[in-house]
Formats: sequence, structure tokens, C-alpha cells
Amino acid sequence: MANPTAAMLVIGDEILSGRTRDSNMHYLAGELTKHGIDLKEARMVSDDHAAIVAAVKHLSAAYDHIFTSGGIGPTHDDITADCIAAAFDRSIDVRDDARALLAAHYERTGSELNQARLRMARIPDGATLIENPVSVAPGFTLENVHVMAGVPSIFESMVASILPTLTGGAPLLSQTLRINQGEGEIAGPLFELAKEYPDLMIGSYPFQKDGAHGSNIVIRGTDGTQIDAAMTKLSDLFPE
Amino acid sequence: MANPTAAMLVIGDEILSGRTRDSNMHYLAGELTKHGIDLKEARMVSDDHAAIVAAVKHLSAAYDHIFTSGGIGPTHDDITADCIAAAFDRSIDVRDDARALLAAHYERTGSELNQARLRMARIPDGATLIENPVSVAPGFTLENVHVMAGVPSIFESMVASILPTLTGGAPLLSQTLRINQGEGEIAGPLFELAKEYPDLMIGSYPFQKDGAHGSNIVIRGTDGTQIDAAMTKLSDLFPE
Repeated sequence: MANPTAAMLVIGDEILSGRTRDSNMHYLAGELTKHGIDLKEARMVSDDHAAIVAAVKHLSAAYDHIFTSGGIGPTHDDITADCIAAAFDRSIDVRDDARALLAAHYERTGSELNQARLRMARIPDGATLIENPVSVAPGFTLENVHVMAGVPSIFESMVASILPTLTGGAPLLSQTLRINQGEGEIAGPLFELAKEYPDLMIGSYPFQKDGAHGSNIVIRGTDGTQIDAAMTKLSDLFPE
Repeated sequence: MANPTAAMLVIGDEILSGRTRDSNMHYLAGELTKHGIDLKEARMVSDDHAAIVAAVKHLSAAYDHIFTSGGIGPTHDDITADCIAAAFDRSIDVRDDARALLAAHYERTGSELNQARLRMARIPDGATLIENPVSVAPGFTLENVHVMAGVPSIFESMVASILPTLTGGAPLLSQTLRINQGEGEIAGPLFELAKEYPDLMIGSYPFQKDGAHGSNIVIRGTDGTQIDAAMTKLSDLFPE
């Protein structure tokens, strides 16, 4: 059976202006691969209502799971929750259980649960909360969209909260062989090998380091025995 | 006049599997911001013909410029050039000027211009070559799509080749104020400030470091005088 599919949506002006280098997509990609969910696509959009709604609608129809990061804080540019509600035509308001989480947290820390912070308790109708062990303000899942914070430590803790609840498939296995020849030398035999193993993904990634150049060949698939066999042939093709 | 718009398309299984962390999108974002081209969206797709063609068609219709990275090397998984040709319904074949570049390069380095390497001279009909000062094999521009390599050093050199030829707009300027208060404390006044300056983008980016937490407030826009004025008000609102 094929693995479940997923897409990621990274939300935030700071990513597209080059101010911040996103790390959440790379983190999620590694976690999904281990869990047996195939990340098929990632998109990055700015804090723009129409852009976010359009991306959520398209991706949630095309894949089994959508993971979003960013835009669920207390400030005026945090519009993700409203966009998710709009994409699924749901109402959104402060929800009692989310408000209670925040109230307890701010009482503990001696801060005021003011109007801005209360924005973080606004949850679309019908959503399930995602636990935030770092800073309490929850994420949420609505339909097949998992909405999480953009701060990497919080994003990663939310992924750890949600991922065990999702049905995974066969983890994607991989083995790598480093070959000290350029891609142009090895491409022919590699092409033949790829034809021989249609169920495996054989990728070639050139590198240049300290004046030398070569290729990392990565063989990926869900059948470890087949990967072993292909790796043996690969090593025979390119003995060091 | 509004700035030209752009999207980026990052192509490669290795990005979506989590093996490689993309750096090209972050690099391009910074360069475009300096050049006055607004990066509106980025997408990452795997080495899949249908996915690449669909993304190119959609993005090239929606934005002024599309920049792609990845998939133009000599191996079997390098399918970007064919996908671009397909997206614009063009034929593709080895082109004389691209072949001549490669032939001269491999003669210099004492390597053979074999069939695999010749793949890198396959250019869609009607495209313009993009110079590659690092490893010679060219990128190309077809319609409004600029097709570049995935290896960061080569990608960056190709961006440096192509960007001066594109008409830019007003560079996006930005100033940042670090405030040692959480977003929840400052969100109210910040919202009022954002309403007062509708032409500026005022973003709030929380941080947590060494147990302390606070917010970086970034004010972006093309009018430096207006940014100065807003920064002065911001500093008055939150004196240290």
C-alpha cells in the first residue's frame, strides 16, 4: 500500500524577504520520512490572506496531510487561524479550553491575559488542539490541516505532539555511496542501474570540496533487501 | 509603480526527503529584495515530470519571473530542461552553442564529452543561455522562467549572471528594533502603529534565547523617510 502523502505550507513575509532562513521544512521532511509519510510538496507564502487561503484549499484537496508553520501568534500579522477557518468556511472565535490553557499559563508566569494574547485562543469551529509544551498557546488540526507555530523550537515540539497520532507507512530507507568521479563520468551506468530497479529512487548529488569533485549516489526505497542488492551492484560498477 | 513579482521553484527529491537542506531559496530571496523584485511565493517539488510541469505553468502565468533550481545535470534524474520545454510546448535538443561551451571545457580539463554530459547541452527551442562561471554547463531562460543549477555555488553564480539583466524596482528597505518584551505585551500598540502606516509592512518575530524572550520588530517598505518616522514612534512606544 502506498504511503500517506503530505505537503507543507510555510507562512511568513520574513521567509520570502530573505530575513529569516526557514528550518521547519527541513525538520518536518526528516520526521515525515522516518514516519513513512511522503512529503510531496512544500510552499512558502507571505502573510497574505488570499494567498494562504488559496494554498490551503489546493493542498488540502491534493494530499492526505498538510502541515503549516507560522502566523499563529498574538500580533496583527498573525492571520493563519482566520485563513484556515476561511478556507474551510468555518466560524472562528475564542474557545474555552484554549483560553483556559492560556489563563493558567499567564497566571503562573504573572503576566496578563490581555486582548492580544487572547487572539491565540481563537480556534476554528470543529478543530482539535495540538499541544504546545514550549509556550502553551496551542496549534490545531482542522480537517487534514495541522496548524503549527513558526518559532522552530515550538514547531518541533508540536510536530512531536501530532506525528505519533498519524498513521504512517513504510519508512523510506536510504543508503549513500560516495564516488570520487563527476556525474558526467558515471551517468551512463547509473541510468542502466536505475532502469533495473524501477521501485527504487536512485539520486545523484554532485559535490565540490577542496578542489576535488564527485557524486553522492543515494538509493532510496522501502524494501531494504532490494536497496542492499542495488548498492552491491553500484559498488561493483564503481570500485574505488 | 509596483515592483516586479517573482516565484521560486526548488526541484529535487533530496529536499523533500530531508536529506538536503535547501539554501538557494534563502539566497535568492535576499538578492531579489536588494534588486527590487518581490518574491511572492516559493515551491519545492520532487523530480517528477507532472509536478514540475504543473508548477511551472501555474507560476509563470501568475508572476513576472520564475527562478528554478535543480535538475539540470547529466544524470537520469535531471529532467528539468525537458519539463520546461513541455510546459511551454517547445521542442528540445542539443544546441550547438551549448555543445561548443561544453566541448571546449572538457577538452581543457582532459575529460570526454560523452553522451551523459551532452545532456547538459539540451536546451528548449527559443531559450537564452545563462552563463555558468563555475562549471560551464549553462542554465537558460525560456519566456519568464530562469532555469538554474541546484549546487549552491553554481546557483549563486547563475543568479549573479542573470539578475543584472532584469529590471528591478525600488529595493525593499528594512529596519529592526529588538524589544525585550513578549509579543503578547506589545501586540496592541503595534497593531495601532501598523494601522497608522498602511504602506509599510510591520512584522513581529518572537525569539527565545538563554531563557529570555522578546520580539524583533521589522519595519519594511520602499520609502526610507516613512520607515524612519515609524521607527521613531516605535522606539517611543517601547523605550528600553
